[in-house]
Amino acid sequence: MTIGLFAGSFDPLTNGHVDIIKRASCLFDMLYVGIFYNKDKKGLFSIEQRQRMLTEALADLENVQIITAHDVLAVTVAKQVGATHLVRGLRGSEDIDLEARLDFYNHELAPELETVYLMTMLEWKYVSSTHVRELIYFKTDISKYVPESVVKEVEETFGNKDN
Amino acid sequence: MTIGLFAGSFDPLTNGHVDIIKRASCLFDMLYVGIFYNKDKKGLFSIEQRQRMLTEALADLENVQIITAHDVLAVTVAKQVGATHLVRGLRGSEDIDLEARLDFYNHELAPELETVYLMTMLEWKYVSSTHVRELIYFKTDISKYVPESVVKEVEETFGNKDN
Amino acid sequence: MTIGLFAGSFDPLTNGHVDIIKRASCLFDMLYVGIFYNKDKKGLFSIEQRQRMLTEALADLENVQIITAHDVLAVTVAKQVGATHLVRGLRGSEDIDLEARLDFYNHELAPELETVYLMTMLEWKYVSSTHVRELIYFKTDISKYVPESVVKEVEETFGNKDN
Amino acid sequence: MTIGLFAGSFDPLTNGHVDIIKRASCLFDMLYVGIFYNKDKKGLFSIEQRQRMLTEALADLENVQIITAHDVLAVTVAKQVGATHLVRGLRGSEDIDLEARLDFYNHELAPELETVYLMTMLEWKYVSSTHVRELIYFKTDISKYVPESVVKEVEETFGNKDN
Amino acid sequence: MTIGLFAGSFDPLTNGHVDIIKRASCLFDMLYVGIFYNKDKKGLFSIEQRQRMLTEALADLENVQIITAHDVLAVTVAKQVGATHLVRGLRGSEDIDLEARLDFYNHELAPELETVYLMTMLEWKYVSSTHVRELIYFKTDISKYVPESVVKEVEETFGNKDN
Amino acid sequence: MTIGLFAGSFDPLTNGHVDIIKRASCLFDMLYVGIFYNKDKKGLFSIEQRQRMLTEALADLENVQIITAHDVLAVTVAKQVGATHLVRGLRGSEDIDLEARLDFYNHELAPELETVYLMTMLEWKYVSSTHVRELIYFKTDISKYVPESVVKEVEETFGNKDN
Repeated sequence: MTIGLFAGSFDPLTNGHVDIIKRASCLFDMLYVGIFYNKDKKGLFSIEQRQRMLTEALADLENVQIITAHDVLAVTVAKQVGATHLVRGLRGSEDIDLEARLDFYNHELAPELETVYLMTMLEWKYVSSTHVRELIYFKTDISKYVPESVVKEVEETFGNKDN
Repeated sequence: MTIGLFAGSFDPLTNGHVDIIKRASCLFDMLYVGIFYNKDKKGLFSIEQRQRMLTEALADLENVQIITAHDVLAVTVAKQVGATHLVRGLRGSEDIDLEARLDFYNHELAPELETVYLMTMLEWKYVSSTHVRELIYFKTDISKYVPESVVKEVEETFGNKDN
Repeated sequence: MTIGLFAGSFDPLTNGHVDIIKRASCLFDMLYVGIFYNKDKKGLFSIEQRQRMLTEALADLENVQIITAHDVLAVTVAKQVGATHLVRGLRGSEDIDLEARLDFYNHELAPELETVYLMTMLEWKYVSSTHVRELIYFKTDISKYVPESVVKEVEETFGNKDN
Repeated sequence: MTIGLFAGSFDPLTNGHVDIIKRASCLFDMLYVGIFYNKDKKGLFSIEQRQRMLTEALADLENVQIITAHDVLAVTVAKQVGATHLVRGLRGSEDIDLEARLDFYNHELAPELETVYLMTMLEWKYVSSTHVRELIYFKTDISKYVPESVVKEVEETFGNKDN
Repeated sequence: MTIGLFAGSFDPLTNGHVDIIKRASCLFDMLYVGIFYNKDKKGLFSIEQRQRMLTEALADLENVQIITAHDVLAVTVAKQVGATHLVRGLRGSEDIDLEARLDFYNHELAPELETVYLMTMLEWKYVSSTHVRELIYFKTDISKYVPESVVKEVEETFGNKDN
Repeated sequence: MTIGLFAGSFDPLTNGHVDIIKRASCLFDMLYVGIFYNKDKKGLFSIEQRQRMLTEALADLENVQIITAHDVLAVTVAKQVGATHLVRGLRGSEDIDLEARLDFYNHELAPELETVYLMTMLEWKYVSSTHVRELIYFKTDISKYVPESVVKEVEETFGNKDN
């Protein structure tokens, strides 16, 4: 039995995340999606909001379960939930040196835990939570980059966009 | 059920290949290892030799099956054997642009077929079939880089190393 | 008055080329599109075919003129036609070292001639003439990657695709 | 009619900036050079000083006009002044991933606005405002890297160099 | 006579540092190892601790001398101690743009001072002081990455590891 | 005593080579410059011509000795002449992956032999023998890129330039 863990801050969830999660859910018997956060660092969305956005957007994926974790390494959570694999998205050359270093560290900390990479689809290559937060700040339409549940949460939290 | 395909020319098999194959065999219900070759391009080892070296080196991996293919795309073979995923090793920044392009093409040719990447372990980062063939040419010891079955085949084919 | 020169082998023209040409045609008073070829190296399409495909695909662009050149540097042709700028498309990190070197050489050979770069749109990032020729070889649909005039020429030259 | 916008913080202007501006001024009918700053972030030079240094250094370029803007995106200013193109300098592989992402965003925010890249001349490749500020901090001669107007402003503001 | 200077913050010393220092000590008649620090930025280890760890770890290297410096450029210290060469370790593509820029600056500031690079051995490629500090924070075994003198100092300072 | 070996094909010698050789000659007690060639691959200049051009250009460097070698690895020649170090020039990110792989191989083949890298000066970054041969082919002035002895040899061999 293979169990994956896809960790991120999801502040907020993007279509790029959703795409990786869908593709990873076909690869593993079970897939945990972990909302990792830092207790001392306030994000744009609260943890409850992030959970709500993920829960709604991923409702169709039966073998996906959403969890939260704070101030802890991904490998530690992986051990706790019995994950056999970490899942990471790769966008291109800008990611690879960091990922290679992370892969090395994770193998040192948990030799039996493997990391599996999926290449980000070209259309989501430049879509990131950081980018989406900037668009929200400039009150620009984000519906091309995020699932419906995020659009809804943004409208309720920050009022209707008017750009 | 997930079925992987790891394609290469394996001329010859290296410890880097074996490492990726072992790790991939834990990820899939079944893993095909495909010896891909070009009818018009002679390698250092014959296809029969390559099969023999792989068969012996991978004997312990129960869900791994070795196949051969020539003058055909990996996606075509993947469809024929019912593979759900291609498997690729990533060595670092030198690979990523080529892999991103391949991933794009493969999605165009076979949208339902996913590619999964595993990061090459640091100790095999610079080990390649090309490198091993050069060491054989210079009659240098290759036992650190290849499984025992390759050392044996080399000794039988090219005589005892004497460096 | 600014005059651009966009040089390539266009074997065949792709949507990526067309996109750069359209955007460059808005930047210059006049834009030459130069089909550069090597007399000794046979391409998949003849020079006449390439001219026909470009002429039809670019018919709407009033300030664009198609020329041909062989066995000559782009800077030499630029001088001959009075171009003030060369135009190049950039796809990303895989291109930049080569382009920086070319830019250096061209400034050495023709200090007054500038090169202007446009970033390839994401959807054409991995589309190249080489890629299209492979798809033609494997009798795969190319209509997403090339203008209608190329689809037509391919069908007339290589018969209807049947993949 | 083509109108360019070259945006930067110019804290201070360097010879690399001047070179890009001169070359871009030949490409466009008109070129805006925009001093972009952040109201809350104090630079080494005041906005008035930066304006003075640019005005003097670019006095010969008839179709160049200096403007200022704060806390606003370059695309927004481009729309306000009617710019058809943004202008960016490229120094090499270290820039390209960031520039590709910016190009993507800018096309999303303003599809009709194009970005044109010029390759930084080799001699200015490592010259940056950051570098010049460090040299000023260490009271080192900066006259190789900046126009005369900057040398003068530095001497008046920070006293004569004595390294 | 050649005199090298290898500068770093060594907070703490790692096996990667030790390897570069050993190899560099064979290249120069004399090698200074400079602990560079910033008076206003507190590290994990005090300067006295860092000196103690280096002194013990490098005791066997007869032509190596440990010095300290704060809030000063490496080239300035190089001039003071009469160094003919700076020594830097290279880990790969992630370092090269920064190193090329530094090399340019250093030649500008001190034309007669050369920089010599040694390639980091593969096994230390991802080992850094930052990484070691993280492992200490998570109370993980660091003995594979640092010399014995660092293990001892960590145990005395932070108590026995208990992971 | 330190002995360096700088190997290349020098077809022809460029100012970039000369710069690296001069700087390396200050680092080692003795420096071998090895003209490496392949018996079956004809270059633009004969081995005798290359020797003549190097001998004249490097006449001032007292601790430099020119040798030739063919169809052999640099590490083998290093052992024969008793070199303690190989010397390599680094031009930037385009070189580093290849150099890291070479460094790994060379350490495998000759663990006691170190490689030392010098960063190419910016002005020679894009100057290469390949580039110079192209300029010779197009009968363009090469005097900015090569030492006087090469200009002379070119004029005698290919006639006066007339561009």
